[in-house]
Amino acid sequence: MKSVIVKQKEDGNILATTDNPAPEMGPEDLLVKVHHAAVNRTDILNKKGKVNYAVNPILGVEAAGTVVDANGSRSFSEGDRVMGLVNGGGYAEYAVMPADRAMPIPQSLSFAEAAAIPEVFLTAYQTLFWIAELKYQETVLIHAGASGVGTAAIQLAKQLRDAQVIVTAGSEEKLQFCRELGADVLINYKEQSFADAVQEATNAQGVDVILDFVGARYWDKNLASIKEGGRWVLIGVLGGSELSSADLMPLMSKYVQLTGTLLTPRSDAYKAELSKEFTRVVTNELERGSIRPVIDRIFPIDEANEAHEYMETNSNIGKIILEVISGEA
Amino acid sequence: MKSVIVKQKEDGNILATTDNPAPEMGPEDLLVKVHHAAVNRTDILNKKGKVNYAVNPILGVEAAGTVVDANGSRSFSEGDRVMGLVNGGGYAEYAVMPADRAMPIPQSLSFAEAAAIPEVFLTAYQTLFWIAELKYQETVLIHAGASGVGTAAIQLAKQLRDAQVIVTAGSEEKLQFCRELGADVLINYKEQSFADAVQEATNAQGVDVILDFVGARYWDKNLASIKEGGRWVLIGVLGGSELSSADLMPLMSKYVQLTGTLLTPRSDAYKAELSKEFTRVVTNELERGSIRPVIDRIFPIDEANEAHEYMETNSNIGKIILEVISGEA
Repeated sequence: MKSVIVKQKEDGNILATTDNPAPEMGPEDLLVKVHHAAVNRTDILNKKGKVNYAVNPILGVEAAGTVVDANGSRSFSEGDRVMGLVNGGGYAEYAVMPADRAMPIPQSLSFAEAAAIPEVFLTAYQTLFWIAELKYQETVLIHAGASGVGTAAIQLAKQLRDAQVIVTAGSEEKLQFCRELGADVLINYKEQSFADAVQEATNAQGVDVILDFVGARYWDKNLASIKEGGRWVLIGVLGGSELSSADLMPLMSKYVQLTGTLLTPRSDAYKAELSKEFTRVVTNELERGSIRPVIDRIFPIDEANEAHEYMETNSNIGKIILEVISGEA
Repeated sequence: MKSVIVKQKEDGNILATTDNPAPEMGPEDLLVKVHHAAVNRTDILNKKGKVNYAVNPILGVEAAGTVVDANGSRSFSEGDRVMGLVNGGGYAEYAVMPADRAMPIPQSLSFAEAAAIPEVFLTAYQTLFWIAELKYQETVLIHAGASGVGTAAIQLAKQLRDAQVIVTAGSEEKLQFCRELGADVLINYKEQSFADAVQEATNAQGVDVILDFVGARYWDKNLASIKEGGRWVLIGVLGGSELSSADLMPLMSKYVQLTGTLLTPRSDAYKAELSKEFTRVVTNELERGSIRPVIDRIFPIDEANEAHEYMETNSNIGKIILEVISGEA
């Protein structure tokens, strides 16, 4: 089968399409004919050799497709449309997906749309509800609002908790898109200090929850923006991971809870439980379109390198998708 | 009545005993004749003008004594022995104590012993159980094990959760005392890297919970010592609050929850709820001596300056007490 692996080159690793045998199922796996996969930053780190938890030589942590071998599953049959996290191997014609984390694709969604769901929606769900425990009508600051996880988090916070959603992004186009998804307060971080704008938007109370993809560069401003007792979840360090000078006192005086998290290296059991809860809680919203996946652009799988390069420009709004079966929506 | 206030001097503030009128009760307060009060670091910061939440000119955030005006309370009567947090005013012959956070003194304890309980035991209880949610037989690393909060935390973790308790301290005498209180693993931080010792004691798994009074200086070592998914509570910055270089990645890759907290500036309602739960859960243990307050030394209230100076030497094991009514135990 066609699949995408990493090829080491002297001037940096690139992706290469190769022919591999179809993957072998474990006793609890489904074999899925992949229609679409999606690109994630973890794939880029993996390509560059910067993460050590990838064991599958084929890239890709999520996919959407059709079950071709249900392997005795009581939940799925051959022909079922499924989406979900995979332990590597998404960028390929066939992938194995543990049955306990496969999610039925809502009828109203295409395979491409389904491929845009698992990683970012499960990450947003995990951070907002499992870690930050966002409550009804609380206030949440979502950095990188137009990113994959950002667009998912805006909708989940709004639709499931009626939260006041404050987003940051670096262009008017991105901010207007965030508003369409439900964001209440838009902050262009290139034009104003987001900390000042948050104070203004919250009557100097600060926010209950922060979703932070930025890390070191925003440390002081995030602490200035959070409410007493607020929960701050660190899910990315696009602004660096090295703090060169940071004050710990506000963590104490404001009783802040700062939690770091990642999804890809979590255990199989964790991913299964998260996927099940997400399916139970969010499927109806996806079915009727009140929550929707956001696709920026679809690349043919043979252009995986171009898809990675495009992600590194940070110009996307929502997900970057790889089309494995050409011509199918 | 006799009371202790801060007197500003050019070469630094000192404490002075003055004569003040007895404090006025609010509708929900008890008037307590203070037998003993206790010294806390927040008093020293207050004396130095470094905290801005103290509104009472008389120092002291906890006291033990006798109710002399129950003020219509349904829970307490004149003559009852009570201990508890006060909103300043502990270093005095009379103090007002909100009735909803006054705790009955267990029969087996003296007033001096009772004065050694509220601040450190409520802080340890709050951090271990409300914030870190320490579970049965988990592993906890308690820095400054011989400090007031440290000695309380060792006992609470051991008696209420059968935890594996690892402590750090700077002398053999302090460590041996921690062992008497129930600590399982003793680390002299002056003689070895505590991070190495923790790895050894936990088969390289790390600890579930860290109680950290040190802050910046221990950042890297605490991250090295914590288990995946561990909870780290920051309750002091004796080792500085300014991080000069720190890596945020381990917070993410180990899914660490870092929470800052303080007790004194918390709301009245918070203190009341905490005091009530502590009374319900811990009174029997105090009554039968399986958990006990630890007193290092008792100073007459006229020697409050000396008591503060003594605390700043960091040589105490357990609490430093002020005796207001002389000759009473």
